[in-house]
Amino acid sequence: MHKELPADLRQAIAEVVTDRAHGASELARRALEIVGVAAREQPADDADALRDLLYRLANALTAAHPSMAPIYNLLACWREEVDQIEAEDLAALRTQSAQCAEHIAQASRRAVAVIAKRGAQLVRPGQTIITHSLSSTVVAILGELTDRQIKVIVTEARPRCEGYQLAKQLSAWAIPTTLITDAQMGFFIQAADVALVGADSLLPDGGVVNKAGTYLLALAAKAHDRPFYVCCESFKRRRAAMPPLELEAMDPTELGAPVYAHVIPKNIYFEVTPAQLVTDWINER
Amino acid sequence: MHKELPADLRQAIAEVVTDRAHGASELARRALEIVGVAAREQPADDADALRDLLYRLANALTAAHPSMAPIYNLLACWREEVDQIEAEDLAALRTQSAQCAEHIAQASRRAVAVIAKRGAQLVRPGQTIITHSLSSTVVAILGELTDRQIKVIVTEARPRCEGYQLAKQLSAWAIPTTLITDAQMGFFIQAADVALVGADSLLPDGGVVNKAGTYLLALAAKAHDRPFYVCCESFKRRRAAMPPLELEAMDPTELGAPVYAHVIPKNIYFEVTPAQLVTDWINER
Repeated sequence: MHKELPADLRQAIAEVVTDRAHGASELARRALEIVGVAAREQPADDADALRDLLYRLANALTAAHPSMAPIYNLLACWREEVDQIEAEDLAALRTQSAQCAEHIAQASRRAVAVIAKRGAQLVRPGQTIITHSLSSTVVAILGELTDRQIKVIVTEARPRCEGYQLAKQLSAWAIPTTLITDAQMGFFIQAADVALVGADSLLPDGGVVNKAGTYLLALAAKAHDRPFYVCCESFKRRRAAMPPLELEAMDPTELGAPVYAHVIPKNIYFEVTPAQLVTDWINER
Repeated sequence: MHKELPADLRQAIAEVVTDRAHGASELARRALEIVGVAAREQPADDADALRDLLYRLANALTAAHPSMAPIYNLLACWREEVDQIEAEDLAALRTQSAQCAEHIAQASRRAVAVIAKRGAQLVRPGQTIITHSLSSTVVAILGELTDRQIKVIVTEARPRCEGYQLAKQLSAWAIPTTLITDAQMGFFIQAADVALVGADSLLPDGGVVNKAGTYLLALAAKAHDRPFYVCCESFKRRRAAMPPLELEAMDPTELGAPVYAHVIPKNIYFEVTPAQLVTDWINER
């Protein structure tokens, strides 16, 4: 028998489920924040009742995006640490489990900062970078390169065109940017020195789960002998215990295509780019 | 000193220049039609004056799309045949040069019909075909396969999404069709048995000039060991005498992207897919 979570927590979980504006790492930190606030504020009769509530909350947040490794990993990490807290005292458990969530979120932010510095070292002044879709980790790297005369080639990333958001950020940094349709990646790889992408998650074998089109860019980079770097925090690696990878089909009406009787539009967001196409994986370790 | 062409011919040429709805072969046949009608109807004092007018018209039509091999080739073929006509008589020259244009246009239509039959033989009943963009030659092949339980995967082909038009035709034929974003080609190649594309033109070495994205599909087909067939009439092969290939940049506002100060949108329609990625070229010979 599952006890139902309080309405405010169910609401917070629902928002994580429907969030399409943020990447997996950001959603994982948001999940930790929800857990941290709940630890401090949710009514509970005693430490055991709070612990039970928080674990159920963490499970529900993990289930919100079963394929997102960062959510799974950061919450599993939190759970492991909270398991070690021996507090019988409600107030102590509140403080310690909340701090634990805050520390893990901080560590994940620090990981991005370390990757930003490392990734920036892969690009020489004056070089042109090609990327696909929008990755907050790639944005962090580009933010380290604003004074190095780089140029960036950005794809629109259909159907939601989150590449526009990246183009906007690069323009605000006054970085000369070329915006292309996804189909032009094979042509514009010739104009790039380096391909740089983020990842939704990494498979145990190093395969990269990322926005559809990443695989095509990797093939083009290989064909033109351009390095293809994947930038992603170590907690994006899928643990063996995770449910098997499922490439979610999203709402096909996002394509905005006309409706025909015998035509089924497909909107698979994520695909796997095999490890052998990756020049290197950049993480914080 | 160039004599200017009559206003009605200049108008007809202008329509060919701005036509974006038709492929190169269709425009080549339209050019022949314009030449044929001019041969029969344009005022001329004598055979020499008519011949001069028609050659100037043919040159102007060739220049309308300098990168389109079919226009260049079919008009060059017409010119070679008209050069042989010894008619001193205006009426005879009218008839013969018009018939010549009509025969060549007919032959090009027959070529498509032959390719349709040949291309259809490459697909076994029940197989799934993936294609990119819209090719009238590929449509002709698919039209031969309506009763063979095939399935088709169609890309939208940004920015103008001419893939929707293909999807509409396939739906009218009740062929089960999957419509995808261009970025999903790398994922959906696994669901296909055969990749089949048309060509704007062929390079002398067999390289394929076709809509941007064709190269990515060819790379994906190679990576997954799927045959990649290019269907195109022999008159699509670029002659050595043609002006060097120029990949035209089209209006970037077609992308519909927001405008940012440091962002330049690019809209390169055509790209070259190298010959070594092509399993076979299907022509009428």
